[in-house]
Amino acid sequence: MKKITVLGGGTGTYVVLSGLKNYPVDLAVIVSMMDSGGSTGKLRDQLGVLPPGDLRQCLVALSEAPLLWRKLFLYRFEKGDLEGHNFGNVFLSALEKVTSNYQEVMETASFVLKTKGQVIPVTFDHTHLTALYENGQVLKGESKIDENNYENGRIIKVSLEPQAQVNQKAITRILESNFLITGPGDLYTSIIPIFLFKEIKEAFAKTKAKLIYVMNLMTKKGQTANFRASDHIKEIEKYSGKKIDIVIINNGIVPEHILKWYLTHGEKQVESDLYNKETKKKIIEEDLVDRTEIVKNKSDKIFRSILRHDSQKLGQVINKII
Amino acid sequence: MKKITVLGGGTGTYVVLSGLKNYPVDLAVIVSMMDSGGSTGKLRDQLGVLPPGDLRQCLVALSEAPLLWRKLFLYRFEKGDLEGHNFGNVFLSALEKVTSNYQEVMETASFVLKTKGQVIPVTFDHTHLTALYENGQVLKGESKIDENNYENGRIIKVSLEPQAQVNQKAITRILESNFLITGPGDLYTSIIPIFLFKEIKEAFAKTKAKLIYVMNLMTKKGQTANFRASDHIKEIEKYSGKKIDIVIINNGIVPEHILKWYLTHGEKQVESDLYNKETKKKIIEEDLVDRTEIVKNKSDKIFRSILRHDSQKLGQVINKII
Repeated sequence: MKKITVLGGGTGTYVVLSGLKNYPVDLAVIVSMMDSGGSTGKLRDQLGVLPPGDLRQCLVALSEAPLLWRKLFLYRFEKGDLEGHNFGNVFLSALEKVTSNYQEVMETASFVLKTKGQVIPVTFDHTHLTALYENGQVLKGESKIDENNYENGRIIKVSLEPQAQVNQKAITRILESNFLITGPGDLYTSIIPIFLFKEIKEAFAKTKAKLIYVMNLMTKKGQTANFRASDHIKEIEKYSGKKIDIVIINNGIVPEHILKWYLTHGEKQVESDLYNKETKKKIIEEDLVDRTEIVKNKSDKIFRSILRHDSQKLGQVINKII
Repeated sequence: MKKITVLGGGTGTYVVLSGLKNYPVDLAVIVSMMDSGGSTGKLRDQLGVLPPGDLRQCLVALSEAPLLWRKLFLYRFEKGDLEGHNFGNVFLSALEKVTSNYQEVMETASFVLKTKGQVIPVTFDHTHLTALYENGQVLKGESKIDENNYENGRIIKVSLEPQAQVNQKAITRILESNFLITGPGDLYTSIIPIFLFKEIKEAFAKTKAKLIYVMNLMTKKGQTANFRASDHIKEIEKYSGKKIDIVIINNGIVPEHILKWYLTHGEKQVESDLYNKETKKKIIEEDLVDRTEIVKNKSDKIFRSILRHDSQKLGQVINKII
């Protein structure tokens, strides 16, 4: 069975994992541990736990447990002391408090959720993302970087503070993979953080795996405003030190009212400029838009995008490649 | 296998269940659903869920899951938004939100915790305990009754508001039991509430099961101040409509410093006056005191007793009877 390893965190990674779960592949995900907003951020600050949010999403995406368990893990409390907290986040946090190490947390959660494949936190250390902007401003914390709008200009450099130790399982997995998949997802806060560990870069240099990048549908203000496809690729290759072999990019039409919504938020579709610039990469263009409307839980305080890749379509496209 | 059914809620019931779990008996517990204090009370008020606290304790007492799961379910958060909440309570509350009925909550929780025997909520309705005192005062809510000190005098009558529907499983179980066990526990807030359902009283009248009562070690101010053993029995027989067949009562010595602690709280050992008054009951006197010191979690805001029955000793005594 082909070894496929997804790298990232957040909704984009959830969609890729959901799309691939039902294919006969050996699946794993290396999860960014930088999240510092919303329920995750509060639990991190208040209880001193590792950020559970991205892990929870990956565990549920790969879960083969009955629907009830998956619903439970994604359930967000709407009122009272627990308002805005996800049950899955609370579960991982409590589990961290009663176990002696985080590996045991992952094993227990994977057991309960019957996850297909491995969920590998990129680190077990407490660390935060920092970003240096064009104007010299430095922001610390994933959620602060996420909330930044235009004023600081482009991000010049992201790094970890403090520098953290990589989880060796991530390294082993990268070396033995046939395909590595990154994206879609917030470029500087979900995708690139994985590459900020020097051992990951070294493993990327060594591995024979092919690197697939699923291009974001939309730009993100304060992170990738006005980025074209080639800008995304340039940044990933800079931080990962590895050339992307295959780019999957949407050519489906995004509904007009959704484009308008994004426009009012200063965001637009990522422009595909790859055919002009890239010859060595395989470029796959498909209609990948999920056209079901996204309903947001009112107790979820985080600003989130309203457009997603269709996990089934994406799964099919990736499966054809591998 | 003998069918043993414990009735109650709270720590006393936890101790009885823990003591009986390892014997080859068919065990069940019918759980009072009146708790309205602490973490349970907040979840009830804020989320509109059924009170999870007593159920959680019973589920854990009967759990044959690895120690980690039991620790997790009893874990109490010490800081932040979740301060004072038990993970088990949060679990049952979230589960109630994602299931269509409470029976499914119980089945799921029992499955995860691998409970030996059945945990049967006495009702699935939302109801509160009310108490009428000697001085005409009425208090509504288990936690208010629990917090009451002396000022209102003795409790004249407890009732449910609103009247609730009994869980039919409780009735079936009472009718087919060989032994019913109640106590130890707060007389008016944990033990008697079960008898406030007319169908339970009817089942108690019909069943051939023998009724065992484990006498409290200490009186409780505002509930059973100055109660002797016979006073406890009189109240249980009045509310349940059934004569107690066997009384288990402690004759072990309670450490002096613990007695002093209780004295400063206006509480003392329950005086055994049964030999003078009772001839038809079997009275079993044993040393049942658990002499390990109880360490309280600092985020637990509820005033709790510091003396417990020893679950192993109690289990042995009950096992000899059955």
